[in-house]
Amino acid sequence: MERCMSPPISMAETSAVCTAASVIRNAKQPLLIIGKGAAYAHAEESIKKLVEQYKLPFLPTPMGKGVVPDNHPYCVGAARSRALQFADVIVLFGARLNWILHFGLPPRYQPDVKFIQVDICAEELGNNVKPAVTLLGNIHAVTKQLLEELDKTPWQYPPESKWWKTLREKMKSNEAASKELASKKSLPMNYYTVFYHVQEQLPRDCFVVSEGANTMDIGRTVLQNYLPRHRLDAGTFGTMGVGLGFAIAAAVVAKDRSPGQWIICVEGDSAFGFSGMEVETICRYNLPIILLVVNNNGIYQGFDTDTWKEMLKFQDATAVVPPMCLLPNSHYEQVMTAFGGKGYFVQTPEELQKSLRQSLADTNKPSLINIMIEPQATRKAQPFPAWIRRSVVATKHAAC
Amino acid sequence: MERCMSPPISMAETSAVCTAASVIRNAKQPLLIIGKGAAYAHAEESIKKLVEQYKLPFLPTPMGKGVVPDNHPYCVGAARSRALQFADVIVLFGARLNWILHFGLPPRYQPDVKFIQVDICAEELGNNVKPAVTLLGNIHAVTKQLLEELDKTPWQYPPESKWWKTLREKMKSNEAASKELASKKSLPMNYYTVFYHVQEQLPRDCFVVSEGANTMDIGRTVLQNYLPRHRLDAGTFGTMGVGLGFAIAAAVVAKDRSPGQWIICVEGDSAFGFSGMEVETICRYNLPIILLVVNNNGIYQGFDTDTWKEMLKFQDATAVVPPMCLLPNSHYEQVMTAFGGKGYFVQTPEELQKSLRQSLADTNKPSLINIMIEPQATRKAQPFPAWIRRSVVATKHAAC
Amino acid sequence: MERCMSPPISMAETSAVCTAASVIRNAKQPLLIIGKGAAYAHAEESIKKLVEQYKLPFLPTPMGKGVVPDNHPYCVGAARSRALQFADVIVLFGARLNWILHFGLPPRYQPDVKFIQVDICAEELGNNVKPAVTLLGNIHAVTKQLLEELDKTPWQYPPESKWWKTLREKMKSNEAASKELASKKSLPMNYYTVFYHVQEQLPRDCFVVSEGANTMDIGRTVLQNYLPRHRLDAGTFGTMGVGLGFAIAAAVVAKDRSPGQWIICVEGDSAFGFSGMEVETICRYNLPIILLVVNNNGIYQGFDTDTWKEMLKFQDATAVVPPMCLLPNSHYEQVMTAFGGKGYFVQTPEELQKSLRQSLADTNKPSLINIMIEPQATRKAQPFPAWIRRSVVATKHAAC
Amino acid sequence: MERCMSPPISMAETSAVCTAASVIRNAKQPLLIIGKGAAYAHAEESIKKLVEQYKLPFLPTPMGKGVVPDNHPYCVGAARSRALQFADVIVLFGARLNWILHFGLPPRYQPDVKFIQVDICAEELGNNVKPAVTLLGNIHAVTKQLLEELDKTPWQYPPESKWWKTLREKMKSNEAASKELASKKSLPMNYYTVFYHVQEQLPRDCFVVSEGANTMDIGRTVLQNYLPRHRLDAGTFGTMGVGLGFAIAAAVVAKDRSPGQWIICVEGDSAFGFSGMEVETICRYNLPIILLVVNNNGIYQGFDTDTWKEMLKFQDATAVVPPMCLLPNSHYEQVMTAFGGKGYFVQTPEELQKSLRQSLADTNKPSLINIMIEPQATRKAQPFPAWIRRSVVATKHAAC
Repeated sequence: MERCMSPPISMAETSAVCTAASVIRNAKQPLLIIGKGAAYAHAEESIKKLVEQYKLPFLPTPMGKGVVPDNHPYCVGAARSRALQFADVIVLFGARLNWILHFGLPPRYQPDVKFIQVDICAEELGNNVKPAVTLLGNIHAVTKQLLEELDKTPWQYPPESKWWKTLREKMKSNEAASKELASKKSLPMNYYTVFYHVQEQLPRDCFVVSEGANTMDIGRTVLQNYLPRHRLDAGTFGTMGVGLGFAIAAAVVAKDRSPGQWIICVEGDSAFGFSGMEVETICRYNLPIILLVVNNNGIYQGFDTDTWKEMLKFQDATAVVPPMCLLPNSHYEQVMTAFGGKGYFVQTPEELQKSLRQSLADTNKPSLINIMIEPQATRKAQPFPAWIRRSVVATKHAAC
Repeated sequence: MERCMSPPISMAETSAVCTAASVIRNAKQPLLIIGKGAAYAHAEESIKKLVEQYKLPFLPTPMGKGVVPDNHPYCVGAARSRALQFADVIVLFGARLNWILHFGLPPRYQPDVKFIQVDICAEELGNNVKPAVTLLGNIHAVTKQLLEELDKTPWQYPPESKWWKTLREKMKSNEAASKELASKKSLPMNYYTVFYHVQEQLPRDCFVVSEGANTMDIGRTVLQNYLPRHRLDAGTFGTMGVGLGFAIAAAVVAKDRSPGQWIICVEGDSAFGFSGMEVETICRYNLPIILLVVNNNGIYQGFDTDTWKEMLKFQDATAVVPPMCLLPNSHYEQVMTAFGGKGYFVQTPEELQKSLRQSLADTNKPSLINIMIEPQATRKAQPFPAWIRRSVVATKHAAC
Repeated sequence: MERCMSPPISMAETSAVCTAASVIRNAKQPLLIIGKGAAYAHAEESIKKLVEQYKLPFLPTPMGKGVVPDNHPYCVGAARSRALQFADVIVLFGARLNWILHFGLPPRYQPDVKFIQVDICAEELGNNVKPAVTLLGNIHAVTKQLLEELDKTPWQYPPESKWWKTLREKMKSNEAASKELASKKSLPMNYYTVFYHVQEQLPRDCFVVSEGANTMDIGRTVLQNYLPRHRLDAGTFGTMGVGLGFAIAAAVVAKDRSPGQWIICVEGDSAFGFSGMEVETICRYNLPIILLVVNNNGIYQGFDTDTWKEMLKFQDATAVVPPMCLLPNSHYEQVMTAFGGKGYFVQTPEELQKSLRQSLADTNKPSLINIMIEPQATRKAQPFPAWIRRSVVATKHAAC
Repeated sequence: MERCMSPPISMAETSAVCTAASVIRNAKQPLLIIGKGAAYAHAEESIKKLVEQYKLPFLPTPMGKGVVPDNHPYCVGAARSRALQFADVIVLFGARLNWILHFGLPPRYQPDVKFIQVDICAEELGNNVKPAVTLLGNIHAVTKQLLEELDKTPWQYPPESKWWKTLREKMKSNEAASKELASKKSLPMNYYTVFYHVQEQLPRDCFVVSEGANTMDIGRTVLQNYLPRHRLDAGTFGTMGVGLGFAIAAAVVAKDRSPGQWIICVEGDSAFGFSGMEVETICRYNLPIILLVVNNNGIYQGFDTDTWKEMLKFQDATAVVPPMCLLPNSHYEQVMTAFGGKGYFVQTPEELQKSLRQSLADTNKPSLINIMIEPQATRKAQPFPAWIRRSVVATKHAAC
């Protein structure tokens, strides 16, 4: 059958490519940020080559994860804040300077950081900041132009530079902190313990779908992607309620998926509530999906009760419960068993390990693992105030 | 606190009221149709008086039920098709000639039937048919005008007329047919058996919320309303997915509700799937809601598999299952127990009776009764083809 | 041919009519305001009866003019500001409390003035002010209800009241001031001189179409309407550019027009510029239209040059002319002669009289009379600041 | 003052450029079409080089005229239909295959013609036809890529080819036919005579603005452009009423305009009627505009009276005149003199020559020359039915 023509490919202006190469060469503290535009452009080969040939540190955005594997030695995800804050040259590959990247502004960035924007969309170039160089075109094609230009003169970013040293030290200390949290034996579990144990068993080629606030944010730092286009996040607008639909779509239409590849859907309990009935669909079609509901047991941190009381003071409500405060001890796993899937209620690392092992072994059935965690559980201390999380809350609240 | 003024009240033109009264007096086979507009206008007192004083047969529309109680001796709901088909004068009180009323056209109506339209909305008058008389104004005020006009000369519609006799006979035979279906002992149960047993225990003052195809259509004929504004249906557009939201809203904001009044939410299994996760909300706020899921066990009649195969032939699907074919033996009651409510899985009339009795007794908790019925169960034979149901299917399908 | 049914007619609630009648009877300083809704409802007969039987002073709105003739002894148009400012009860017949009626608010009205709103549109009732009584329904039908109610007890508003005396005195002094302005012999003429001479020759049954700022506002006070639905103004939003289209429409489709009735289109020079090329259409179809362009010779008062300079300061314009400052000595009459109509350029009362006489005599051709007036001409001193005119300017400017 | 960054420039994929160059080299009957996209991209230098270096025939679209001068020896505008119909390879530079280019379809094109599309807008590529090659990017940059690629191997399209011979012969015969029409001495004049005399005096650097049906279509073939971005047409949608606004805009804001450069606005009489009052603005600001109204004296050919009668048969119109039939002998020049500009009414070539000479000499005033032509005047016989013109009529009619 005849199909419409492939999208035409454009390249960046040659002189802009020269300028960009020169800016990169002269960078003292360079950083590459790999966005989902790079994944869409199938630029994994060229970008990996750029990273490795010139020994440049990189950070993936949530859905840019896997373009270069998360466990690549040049991935500085574990020193994200540090890397953003002190880089003097940042190359954005299909990554946009929206709230996820703190709009490219101080104090999260140096005031005089030079951005090189590589994007297929002209309207994106120059958003929020005035870039040093803009490279308009297909990201894979443009990266190849950059490689060709840089290849003209032998060069690499010195692996023993102070910048690499700073980043490596920061990664080490952050990873140690995470590991310490992950190894805590106290019950209920915390986020890091949960994700540490999940990561241990996660198949290398699985698709990870995720939504929630802390669940998505912390999960993203621990759960690794090794392949491009294998992670679906709540996305730029942090929309809640999309996770199960994304997981079903990944199971049914993902072009990159081969038989036997699992979809692991990591949900906060609040996020799951938006479209939890989709488990009926998952069961009906027997889709290869494992749902992890990271359940902080009905206590919502984002919105304090006093604020809520204030909002309601015109009502004579006696029991003041904000609508996004969930029911404690909800047995989400029963929503799965109701439709014939496997359900697990887990409270300890051992139960989590075992239930995940069983779920992955049972290739004939979807499962839901309801993972009880500490209600007050939160992330490790952050250097900047968590305004991102608030905005997610606002979005969710609006959706309520 | 100051509030905005009450809506102004308008009346019909005096001469139009005279004409309408005269048309009613001269009717051979009159019929009143009481729509939800009459309920919104709080016209229950005046319309009941009109019905009783002049001994006129009436039919409620789905959400007009209860303006005059369904068990009123002049209600001819059990002879609906007959009443519509042979009436020579029909007075519409806030009822619109849309698909629910078969657009007011033959063969469901006499070609020369005279319509008298009473409505607050000028744009509605003359829709689809050319009415004999139009009475524009507040329905309660206009009905009082009509009463005043008719009172001028002593008159009543003869209770021994051939029309009344015809209607009573038809009602008798329809009720007998329903009763026969209801009393069938074979298992799985059919719709009539289920609704017959539900009706027996339904509190007189409960709110009934309903959505689904056969579930809503048949349920509406068996489950009785005694009070105005106590029934919420899927509405004019047959939108699916609204039932649980309506039930929650009825529990939280209905002005007519006093403490202790139950909301009985009668759902088809497909309808429940659209927003079944709302049971978490129902449990969280402990709302006085009993959910009845009338479960025809995953077999969907409205759309045949061949049609579906045809639609899918461009795909190489091996197992062809239309997306609205549900999972057999779904344990919807577990969705309720997952969040701490009571769940019942019932297969016999006795189990249904018992579970409903317990649900109504347990005023501290919401319940869900998952009622298994015969997959092929349908309504009793209808004199006209069931195009209405098809359109509901289409709507639902679109929503999938 | 079958046509759609006539619009249904509704009446006001009987009790509200009683209350309204009682409020009217108890008014110390009553006022009726007749809006274009009264004209649309063909309420001329009932409203005239109400005015005359109870001797009530009335004011027409721009397009309510002619429902009761402007020269009726009870018309207090010449004391408009006074009447609005001191009335204690105002009955609005299809007149809305928008900017044209100063939103019904102090200081243009008494703070405790009681409004009785008669309107066909429920959403209009209670706009801006909280009315004492609202009568929702067809304005002609409701006025007849009011007449019937007031007739029950003999009553009339005392013609020798202090209120009538005040209004008559104010009218007298205003009319004297206008007449003085009108009789000024100095040249160029002023607005009042122009309109005074036009009014002298205006056929009783002509249609008057008008747009402009001062031209429309002052013209409306001098040019009289004797028949309902015979005046078309720039309307509620003061839209410029509509005059010639309205005149053509009046000539072609006005149901009330008989052969021989003229359309007199009174235009400001700026207003004419919006769609002046329509004179070609007027000439092509030889329509019975006389265009009067009241030409204040290119000097625009509404927007001062300094403001304009400020707006333009980012440009290096040498000659700063705001776009709505027109060309002095424009010979608009040549636009008419270009297409074969009659054109007159007039500078004196005598020329104006003569050209208008000739135009009216020449029933075979449209004419345009270009009337040169004093550039600084404005209206007589007003008791309130002319914010209305500013808003017209703003509208026009936006349209430029 | 800081301004936003210049738009980023993208180039075409290198391999696509190679393919395109190869397709061009192998063309038997090549044709370049230069659209307004080429003008917007300031691609005049690169495209002229491509034309001259490789000796390729080219055609401009209406607003692509002047990118390469119309009198360039390789311009085949005078053989447009022939060139389109028999080319085997067509390169589109910012020209779109809409109605102006007959959608790129037979019978106006060879069924197997190979299109090479050069455009900045990805969505345009592949519209209507499946192109042989697509070059996405900035048109100037891409043309330079093409030049560089073609330069690699010495080559030029043979000037003595049969294709060039065919085109030159057709141009010669078409030019002779036009010249013959232009030299007709009979009065009233025809379109060609008018434009021939206008072209003789047209300043080389003037801006030409045009709208109308035949006026614009024929005018475009005779009036020459020598500079890019110096022609404004009614545009892709053939919108009428834009000409005077375009002329004013060209006079006030055109970046390419130096003092002393004239705007020549060539209008059909119907087109002029849409916004003729703008001459007041032209006079008020004394703009360097000469308006030519090519007046075919009120007879409209596009819509026959019978069709109109049919459309009106539900009306009892006695005199049936379609609304777009204009007034004969309209003196449009008086609309100019009314506001102080110069007006000329011309009926002979000598009068036209003289009035145009005077208009161009009088640099202090705008002029309007009302040029009377033969009412039945039309264009010379065309090889294809004039459906384009019909669509313009439809547009205009809709606008009436």
